[in-house]
Amino acid sequence: MVWRDAPPAVDLLDQTALPHEERRLVCPDVPTLVDAIRRLAVRGAPLLGIAGGYGVALAALRGDDVAAAADALAGARPTAVNLAWGVRRTEAAYLRRRDPAAALAEAHAIRTEDADAAARIAEHGLGLVPADARVLTHCNTGWLVSGGEGTALGIVAAAHRAGRLAQLWVDETRPLLQGARLTAYEAARAGIPHAVLADGAAGSLFAQHRVDLVIVGADRIAADGSVANKVGTYPLAVLARHHGVPFVVAAPVTTVDLATASGTDIEVEQRDPAEVTAYAGQPVAPAGSPAYNPAFDVTPAELVTAIVTDRGVATADAAGGIAAALVRLIPDPVTVVRPSVP
Amino acid sequence: MVWRDAPPAVDLLDQTALPHEERRLVCPDVPTLVDAIRRLAVRGAPLLGIAGGYGVALAALRGDDVAAAADALAGARPTAVNLAWGVRRTEAAYLRRRDPAAALAEAHAIRTEDADAAARIAEHGLGLVPADARVLTHCNTGWLVSGGEGTALGIVAAAHRAGRLAQLWVDETRPLLQGARLTAYEAARAGIPHAVLADGAAGSLFAQHRVDLVIVGADRIAADGSVANKVGTYPLAVLARHHGVPFVVAAPVTTVDLATASGTDIEVEQRDPAEVTAYAGQPVAPAGSPAYNPAFDVTPAELVTAIVTDRGVATADAAGGIAAALVRLIPDPVTVVRPSVP
Repeated sequence: MVWRDAPPAVDLLDQTALPHEERRLVCPDVPTLVDAIRRLAVRGAPLLGIAGGYGVALAALRGDDVAAAADALAGARPTAVNLAWGVRRTEAAYLRRRDPAAALAEAHAIRTEDADAAARIAEHGLGLVPADARVLTHCNTGWLVSGGEGTALGIVAAAHRAGRLAQLWVDETRPLLQGARLTAYEAARAGIPHAVLADGAAGSLFAQHRVDLVIVGADRIAADGSVANKVGTYPLAVLARHHGVPFVVAAPVTTVDLATASGTDIEVEQRDPAEVTAYAGQPVAPAGSPAYNPAFDVTPAELVTAIVTDRGVATADAAGGIAAALVRLIPDPVTVVRPSVP
Repeated sequence: MVWRDAPPAVDLLDQTALPHEERRLVCPDVPTLVDAIRRLAVRGAPLLGIAGGYGVALAALRGDDVAAAADALAGARPTAVNLAWGVRRTEAAYLRRRDPAAALAEAHAIRTEDADAAARIAEHGLGLVPADARVLTHCNTGWLVSGGEGTALGIVAAAHRAGRLAQLWVDETRPLLQGARLTAYEAARAGIPHAVLADGAAGSLFAQHRVDLVIVGADRIAADGSVANKVGTYPLAVLARHHGVPFVVAAPVTTVDLATASGTDIEVEQRDPAEVTAYAGQPVAPAGSPAYNPAFDVTPAELVTAIVTDRGVATADAAGGIAAALVRLIPDPVTVVRPSVP
């Protein structure tokens, strides 16, 4: 994601066109950016935080109604906590002196901090990767969605560089195929040995003892350590538990929402049934067949082995469990609220 | 599947064109039929048994080398036991008097018996369906793949007629989308309330207590009660166990292969990676990304609540478990071997 100055605009790599086309999408205003967020041209927890920040800066620099723009951005996707966090943080920076330049500086800072957080997540996570690891991941969490190298895939890339990665199993991640389209693209670019699989095929890999570790990202982590992530994550957590394989979540502390008490409090975005019943504009199911299409599922804390953050690792076997470990890592909880006008 | 007499041919509904086109595929010779089986234009355990029988009859009536044709048919898909069973049974009927008419009569008999078996499976299975049941299924098991109403979907249809079905959840069943394309088509035709979902979304339905029963078909059932079925079945069995939901398998006794001792002895067909990396001829993953694409997975007997056959139900809580119950149901095991020339 690149900021453009004159005229002000957010310049994105359109993720819906990948891997076949590296199409840029220039958003000169907030409605264009909100649309890009809604249709997942830009997606992924850390990148949504950055996009939220740049969106608010864009509104401020254009002289738009910043509060309205911030609400539109923050509400574009309800589950992803980083989006609202980036929006509100930048809005607050703007409101201090009603200074558009301060908003832009804050958005740039979010981006820089995310690159830094990604590096620290990779460093902390590397300690959880055994030698010759065969790692399974779901959805997309690499440099496409980060100011740096990403979350789960950042750990995988670090393990690859450290000579510790034997194989990356890439869940294709239906319905929108972020695994097949984006993670395989990142893995191929980084020279990481990988194979794509239908989401349902992961079970047979576990049964054959061909998975040593599951690492996924997160869209929101509740105070109890429950994890909302791309739909299809929860079955992997259940399979991992059934087979005694560690299930690890990687996310910056900005994804941890201590204001959300538990997984059942997380609102799960329901998306257009046509994402399931059609593919690339071609219908798949019979016309009129209904579909169930939640964007996310929630993995309860008891199935999570460890949460790797930029501030360290919260593990299930820590004193008090993951929830207590999270609080120790994050004594200064991030709260996502509309800033008050000074 | 319709038999044509003059000239002899097997007339199929091409399942790859459904649900958008009801395209007939007329196979005038065995190589055309073998190709149709390989590319899943005709598929589904019971229908493969019928197709195998008609294929041998076709070779006999054409004056082809029946043994060679039988081998080609039986080997077209290695996991599906019904295919080899239908082939060898019809070949044996032919060999008794080298009579093509006897082969055709045997193939017709396989078809009639399957319709009958489907009716009995539905009857036996109905007793396992609670009131207002929300049933989850995977892949496709209805009248498209049966001489009658099918296996798992036959039970669902019977439950619907009995006023006992609240909802059918249809796993889309990647990579070839037999759920979205075929099961949704059958459900819509039968007026069964249903919704299609990405395979990975099933977990969130379990977590929300919105699944009362899983019913699937089978491609091969080993003597120990392990079940090979479409890839993606095993994760449902693990989820069902985790959530205390019954996991039921429906299949005619001809799918039970007592000569295969356990699940680990079942050969699992590996299919073209392009089924995963491309969709409808359009590439999805980056060019050159490898894929893992097993056609089936194996669910161990300890995760199976019951196997519903045309001869009755083998349940996990029977004396001696499912394996012993299967032997009591099938004292006359079906063995799939090349018949000896008399």
